Amino acid sequence: MSKRILVIGASACGAKAAARIRRLCPDDDVTLLDESRYISYAACGMPYYLGGRVRAMDDLRKTTYGRIRDAAYFQEVKGIQIRTGLRALHIDRTARLVEAEDVATGKSFSFAYDALILAMGAAPKTPPIPGAELRGVYHLTRLEDAEALAAELGGRGRGSAVIVGGSFIGVETAEALASRKWSVTMLERESQLFPGLLDFEIAAMIQEHFFENNVAVELNAEILSFGETDGRVGRVITKKAQYDADIVIIAAGLAPRTKLAQAAGLSLGETGALRVNARMQTDDPAIYAGGDLVENVHLVTGKPCYIPLGSTANKHGRVIADNICGIPSEFPGVQGTFACKAFDYSVGSTGVTEAQAARLHLDAGAVSVCGFDKAHYYPGSQILGLKLIYENGTHRLLGMQAVGKGDAVRRIDVAATAIRLRASIRDIVSLDLAYAPPFSAALDVFVAALNVVGNIATGLMKPVDAREAKALLEQGGALMVDVRSALEFERTHIDHPGVVNLPLDELPRRMGELPKNRKIICVCLLGLRGFTAQRMLDGAGFADVHTLEGGLFLWPWKDELA
Amino acid sequence: MSKRILVIGASACGAKAAARIRRLCPDDDVTLLDESRYISYAACGMPYYLGGRVRAMDDLRKTTYGRIRDAAYFQEVKGIQIRTGLRALHIDRTARLVEAEDVATGKSFSFAYDALILAMGAAPKTPPIPGAELRGVYHLTRLEDAEALAAELGGRGRGSAVIVGGSFIGVETAEALASRKWSVTMLERESQLFPGLLDFEIAAMIQEHFFENNVAVELNAEILSFGETDGRVGRVITKKAQYDADIVIIAAGLAPRTKLAQAAGLSLGETGALRVNARMQTDDPAIYAGGDLVENVHLVTGKPCYIPLGSTANKHGRVIADNICGIPSEFPGVQGTFACKAFDYSVGSTGVTEAQAARLHLDAGAVSVCGFDKAHYYPGSQILGLKLIYENGTHRLLGMQAVGKGDAVRRIDVAATAIRLRASIRDIVSLDLAYAPPFSAALDVFVAALNVVGNIATGLMKPVDAREAKALLEQGGALMVDVRSALEFERTHIDHPGVVNLPLDELPRRMGELPKNRKIICVCLLGLRGFTAQRMLDGAGFADVHTLEGGLFLWPWKDELA
Repeated sequence: MSKRILVIGASACGAKAAARIRRLCPDDDVTLLDESRYISYAACGMPYYLGGRVRAMDDLRKTTYGRIRDAAYFQEVKGIQIRTGLRALHIDRTARLVEAEDVATGKSFSFAYDALILAMGAAPKTPPIPGAELRGVYHLTRLEDAEALAAELGGRGRGSAVIVGGSFIGVETAEALASRKWSVTMLERESQLFPGLLDFEIAAMIQEHFFENNVAVELNAEILSFGETDGRVGRVITKKAQYDADIVIIAAGLAPRTKLAQAAGLSLGETGALRVNARMQTDDPAIYAGGDLVENVHLVTGKPCYIPLGSTANKHGRVIADNICGIPSEFPGVQGTFACKAFDYSVGSTGVTEAQAARLHLDAGAVSVCGFDKAHYYPGSQILGLKLIYENGTHRLLGMQAVGKGDAVRRIDVAATAIRLRASIRDIVSLDLAYAPPFSAALDVFVAALNVVGNIATGLMKPVDAREAKALLEQGGALMVDVRSALEFERTHIDHPGVVNLPLDELPRRMGELPKNRKIICVCLLGLRGFTAQRMLDGAGFADVHTLEGGLFLWPWKDELA
Repeated sequence: MSKRILVIGASACGAKAAARIRRLCPDDDVTLLDESRYISYAACGMPYYLGGRVRAMDDLRKTTYGRIRDAAYFQEVKGIQIRTGLRALHIDRTARLVEAEDVATGKSFSFAYDALILAMGAAPKTPPIPGAELRGVYHLTRLEDAEALAAELGGRGRGSAVIVGGSFIGVETAEALASRKWSVTMLERESQLFPGLLDFEIAAMIQEHFFENNVAVELNAEILSFGETDGRVGRVITKKAQYDADIVIIAAGLAPRTKLAQAAGLSLGETGALRVNARMQTDDPAIYAGGDLVENVHLVTGKPCYIPLGSTANKHGRVIADNICGIPSEFPGVQGTFACKAFDYSVGSTGVTEAQAARLHLDAGAVSVCGFDKAHYYPGSQILGLKLIYENGTHRLLGMQAVGKGDAVRRIDVAATAIRLRASIRDIVSLDLAYAPPFSAALDVFVAALNVVGNIATGLMKPVDAREAKALLEQGGALMVDVRSALEFERTHIDHPGVVNLPLDELPRRMGELPKNRKIICVCLLGLRGFTAQRMLDGAGFADVHTLEGGLFLWPWKDELA
């Protein structure tokens, strides 16, 4: 018997579900409602359109073979009834009816359903700041936003932009505008970029790279107001400073559009997003929901989380379609995996960060390890910094972050797979990853990082993290021995009288110069020479020798280096 | 109590083991013997030195911080006694002595050991071809080979090269010489490139790319002789043709250097390489062995295999060092993961191929899936072809191959991790991989491929592979409906009267033109539009409709396309 399927929201989850239902059950009637003019576009691509890397806005609306995914496409090719410019107003769960109105004309419509899919997504959060309603203050959530913003950027040539929010949309947008030679300032109200998503020292790498690319960052920013000039925004005033701002882009996070669902009596979860079960059903088994509207189970913490992402929304759509069409299907949850490009850097995370693990009182260890993304002699090889978080005792991998100019994402994806399969570090320490000089070192940096955890567990490596090392140095609690070459040291080093340079090559014959009973921290660029030095000194009877994990590459205070 | 550790072979495994033993047990005496002048160099980097991407030969000998890893380095920095130019002649297992001679002077030496590590590696196989001893016929196994070859290449400017062997060393070397504008011919005695390592249609992609890059390939090549000109090689004569050859490079595989071990009564495995247990011990518990000398357990087949790789050798070295120093450690085995760059293409494999699975009588299914490596609208996005091999019933992932201009290696590594952890496709079908437009499609091509297996299992997708499709077409057993646009079809298509073009967009209104009861194969570029068309026709009551898996992107007979 053919069913009537109604989908509200024609973006990732809704469009995917509708298309798959048509493939699975060609006899079903599928109707797709959306408020907007544009549907099924690649919202994640908008920063690249603004930056000019994606040339035409319509490129974000096209299939892989160049057809625009408009109403006609859904209708003709997919056989989906599509109604754009229609706002859903009310769900009558008893009658299985949705009331809607035409946004332009106000005309009412009513749609009966056997199964309803809620995929309205999320709306941008707007901090309550005076002037937020001024012309020139943008969000970047809908394609209409990108269209208006691109028109303004194009009309102005160059100018000054302030971006509010230092998470991935903000970071991608900052890169986009800077690549158009705009002067960009990023304001983040927390004490680091990517708050809640990356540990501070990994985020600090992006901040440093922003500095190299002339993007100014104010952290702990308290925005007092958006100031008006000639009837539109002209500047942003924070507690600390004032910035010129021909445009302001607010990228301060998303709030799920739960109003319709709430009014229909469907429960929200503890994150404030709509609650669904593993089959993506709401409280009402006839009503499914997915995408940026719902919360997910976090596979590492076991707790609900709200992480709106296009990749997750697509998977939701598939699970919903399967269940509606009689193929039992469950969405297992997410693990917070993300990646972001910022100029020449890639950065990403999967699982939990050290800070999240601490907040959740997980019994977790963490270590940072650096190494080359390719064979180090291969042209274009780059240093990557990895940070592993693992459960103490079991050594189950709980999270990993990666940052650098090289292929950080590959290592994130490998870690994501291991975490998904609940691997302990022991399970994967000899992982047979693809090796050739253009792709990795003989021992891939990820495997090298797993080995370091083994070295710590056996007491071989005694790591000190950057924060601890800095505190020890400043309190006079340790001597820092920089074992890089004299040339490397001269170029840049930690600027403190407690730091001495003693190159690794000279250490065997010069170790007598070092105090035997003082705490010593061995430092190098990546952490490997430091570790070798630590073992030499351990072997020579030095009592309290440690290695700066992650080396100077991951040292978070690059601005203080000499 | 300090131990005397003797290591024979100062390359990947031996050098790694020696260095780690010194770190673990600083009191042990570690002595490292090697026949060659050069030690601990990056052998895998030699093709890139020949091609000029690595500028100086010494770059292959340097640490990440620029110090040459010569005898002095091992001695001074690592505290390892090192003896180069010394050939081990005999192992006296009872007395725990190794006899050796100086290669230059013939002088004898004797070394006592408590633990012995055999890491002599492998020697290149030389096919018994007349003229193989001529000047100008090279191997590329030792740095001395690369040095001589580079000198000759540099002296000649341009010329003609014949490469014997179409596996990864041969392929990398072909790219290197072609990039120097040499005229390159590759001779492979099997019927495909990468024989035994890739399925034929994946290897065919590299062959086609070689064609695009003017590298000639003769498959099923039977070399009769290397012909002499002016006292050196001048041409290569095969049963089919004759090729100019200023130089010949033989890359026909490696044979483990087992002579010394055999003479000492240590057992070889069924592959002919030295047999070791999981702790990397030979029959004699005091004698460890690793690297290219030994065979490994294949984690998917459970059988011994001989896959000499630098990445594996490094892991062996670590396991050996740990066991010698009292940290119980096991090497779990390998899964045949490899990657290779060939011009703009990357190709790789992990686990078993479809051909291997068939040879081993595994109950396995296979499917090819194509998709973009990045968001398709992101500049530089590339199509990747993936081939998944999985156990029928359980859907355990057994293998994956990937090929294309994009990041194939990331997907190989993810699959390698899943295979290592014995994942079924169900375990990872909603895998939370890192997503951002510069890195992947919203649904990563790997996840999309897993979904396809699900679609096949539920009977939704009825795939036909390229070989079967070609046979059906040629026997008149099927109508092939190419559902790409008219423009795409005009540019290139399968050249057969049984192929018609009916664009997907027009299919809904034109499907009446197709025969309802004939076998139909829906074809597109990637396989997705073909699948959509198949479902449309299924839904309209067509009886026997199938999808060409992998689409035209993976069609292996590009030379026959119109």
